[in-house]
Amino acid sequence: MASDGATIRHATREDVPTIYGLIHELADYEKSTDLVKATEDLLTKTLSHADPNNPSSFTPGYAKTFLITAPEGEVAGMALYFYNYSTWTAVPGIYLEDLFVKPKYRKRGYGKALIKKLAAEVVGLGGSRLEWSCLTWNTPSLEFYESLGAKRKDAWVGLRVEGDALTRLAGS
Amino acid sequence: MASDGATIRHATREDVPTIYGLIHELADYEKSTDLVKATEDLLTKTLSHADPNNPSSFTPGYAKTFLITAPEGEVAGMALYFYNYSTWTAVPGIYLEDLFVKPKYRKRGYGKALIKKLAAEVVGLGGSRLEWSCLTWNTPSLEFYESLGAKRKDAWVGLRVEGDALTRLAGS
Repeated sequence: MASDGATIRHATREDVPTIYGLIHELADYEKSTDLVKATEDLLTKTLSHADPNNPSSFTPGYAKTFLITAPEGEVAGMALYFYNYSTWTAVPGIYLEDLFVKPKYRKRGYGKALIKKLAAEVVGLGGSRLEWSCLTWNTPSLEFYESLGAKRKDAWVGLRVEGDALTRLAGS
Repeated sequence: MASDGATIRHATREDVPTIYGLIHELADYEKSTDLVKATEDLLTKTLSHADPNNPSSFTPGYAKTFLITAPEGEVAGMALYFYNYSTWTAVPGIYLEDLFVKPKYRKRGYGKALIKKLAAEVVGLGGSRLEWSCLTWNTPSLEFYESLGAKRKDAWVGLRVEGDALTRLAGS
C-alpha cells in the first residue's frame, strides 16, 4: 500500500480493457503509438490473469500485471512483469517490463510502491533478483532507481533479433 | 539439427544431473564456481521439464532447457531460457539466459544451432523477439551475434536489485 492509501492488486481478465488503456496512454506518452499492436484479445490470451475469487491462482500466460488504485477509486498505474531465472542460483527472479503511472497521479510514490511490491514477490518466491532496463540518458530515472538499491549492469549489452532477421534465423 | 547430425531436444526431469554438470562446467569456465548455489533438487523444482512421453508437455517452472547431443552420443551443450513479453505487441518472446557448449565440441556450429532452435520457437509462438545479453568487451561474441542478425540495445542499461538491497526494498 502506498502511504496515501492507494492499493495494489493483481489484474484479472476483467481488467484487460484497463490495461489496454494504460498501454496506449504509456505509448502516447513515449510518442510510440504507431508501434502498439496489442489488442484486448491478444492481452486476454497472452497475459496471466488472477482469478477474482482466488487472487493467488492465475491463468497460464507470459506476464502478470499489478494495478495500483488511487484513493479516488481510479486505477492510477501498472507494473507489467514476468519471471526470469538465475542459472547460478537455480531460483526465479522478476523482470519489470513496463512501469507506468498516469501523469495526474505522479509524485505520490506509486512507482516506488509498485517496485516494492515486486521486490516482496521476489523475496516471497525465494528468488534472488529484481531487474529492469532504463534508457542510458534518462538520468533522473537512473538516480531514482539507484536510490532504491538498484545497481547498473554497465558491463552488459542487450542483444535482440526481431522481424525479418528473426524469421531468417528461425528458418535458414 | 546441426550440420553434423547433432540433435536438439528439450530437457526432461531425468536430465537434471546433466544440466547440473553443464552449469558447473560453465561456472568453472567463467571462474565463477563459488557463485553457484544451484543444486539438483532446486533445478528439479524450478525448471520446466518436458514430459519424456509427450515432449510438448511441460511441468510448471521458470525456465526451459534445450540440450544438444553430439553424434558421439554425449550431451555437448545447452541453452537455458525463459519467456519474456513485449507490451507493445502483447506477444511473448524468448530470453536466452545461458548458452554453453563444452570446449571439446566447439567449432561445430552447436551454439548457432541452439540459437536457431530458439528463434524457431519464438516464431512458432507467434512471438516477436529473441534476446540475450553479452559482456560489452566480448568483441568476438558480439560479432558472432551480429552475424546472426542481432542488434545491440546500446541505448539501454540493465538495472538489478539483489541481496540485502532486495530484502530492504521488499520490507521497508
